[in-house]
Amino acid sequence: MISLSLTTEELIDAYGEGACECPSPNAQMSLVFSQSRSFDLVELEQLLQAVGWSQRPFRKVRMALDNSLLKVGLWQHDPSFPRLIGFARCTGDGVLEATVWDVAIHPLYQGFGLGKQLMDYVNKSLRNLGIRRITLFADPGVVSFYLSQGWLLEPKGHRCAFWYAN
Amino acid sequence: MISLSLTTEELIDAYGEGACECPSPNAQMSLVFSQSRSFDLVELEQLLQAVGWSQRPFRKVRMALDNSLLKVGLWQHDPSFPRLIGFARCTGDGVLEATVWDVAIHPLYQGFGLGKQLMDYVNKSLRNLGIRRITLFADPGVVSFYLSQGWLLEPKGHRCAFWYAN
Repeated sequence: MISLSLTTEELIDAYGEGACECPSPNAQMSLVFSQSRSFDLVELEQLLQAVGWSQRPFRKVRMALDNSLLKVGLWQHDPSFPRLIGFARCTGDGVLEATVWDVAIHPLYQGFGLGKQLMDYVNKSLRNLGIRRITLFADPGVVSFYLSQGWLLEPKGHRCAFWYAN
Repeated sequence: MISLSLTTEELIDAYGEGACECPSPNAQMSLVFSQSRSFDLVELEQLLQAVGWSQRPFRKVRMALDNSLLKVGLWQHDPSFPRLIGFARCTGDGVLEATVWDVAIHPLYQGFGLGKQLMDYVNKSLRNLGIRRITLFADPGVVSFYLSQGWLLEPKGHRCAFWYAN
C-alpha cells in the first residue's frame, strides 16, 4: 500500500529525526509523519480551520508550539512543497503527564484511517519518552473515534474531568 | 485574620517573586504561596502520599517539576524551616492551554478553605500569563470541591475527556 519514493536518508533530510512513513490510501501519494519539520503558521491555521476551529492569533500559536512537548505534522510528500494534511500536539512535563491538543486531519483526507495512524504515532512517540499517562479533551462528534482506539471516556467513577475558562 | 510577621521584602527574599500571603485559619500561623521556592522532593512526596497518592521515582518527579509551567507551594512560614503544607502544579504551552496536576493540601490543614485559596492562586497566576483555558482531572471525592468554584464537569455535551494509559 505504501509507495514512498524517498530513501531513509531523504526522509530524515526533509522531515527530521523520528520521521516515518504513514500508510497511504493512494499508491500515488506518499505520506510522512514528522516531529521536527517546521510549520508555516498560515498553513497550520488553515488546516485547523478546515476542521472547524476558529482562528487564533499567530503570535500565541507560535508561542504555544514553542512550548509544546511534541508537535506532529502529517505531510503529503512533495520534493519541493510538502503539504500539511494532519496535525497534533502535546503539552506535558515530559515524564509523567501529557495532554493531546489540536488533533486534525484535513477533511479531504478523512475516512482513510489517517487519524488513527496519527494517534498511534503520537502515542508511540510519548511512550518513547517514557510517558504512560495521556489525556485529551474531545468534541462529542469524535468520541467513538477515540473509544475505538482504547481511550477511556471520563468521568466514569474513577476520574472526572474539569474545564475552567479564566 | 492574617498575622504575617514578614515584611514584603522578607516575603520575597524567602519565597521569591510572586509570593503572597494566604489567609490563615490560625492567627499564630502564617501561610505563604510561592511559585519559586524550591521543593525538598522527600517533603513533597510525603505531602502527596499523605493525601493518598502512591510514591513516584524522585528522578521522574524532579524532571516533571523542571518541565512544569507553574509549581505552587503553600508554606507554613517559619524563619528557619518553612513547612510545605500544600501543592499544585500545571503543565501547558504557556499561552493557550494549562492542565493542573497534583493538587494537595495536607490532611491536618484541610477544612479551612485552603484548597480554594490554592486554586484561586493557581488560576490567578495562569490568568497573569494570559491563559484562559484550564483543565484538570479530579478524583470523584473532590468533584463537589471543584464544582463549587466554577469549574465545569465534562463530558456534558460540549467536550468529552479521555484518558489513555500507554
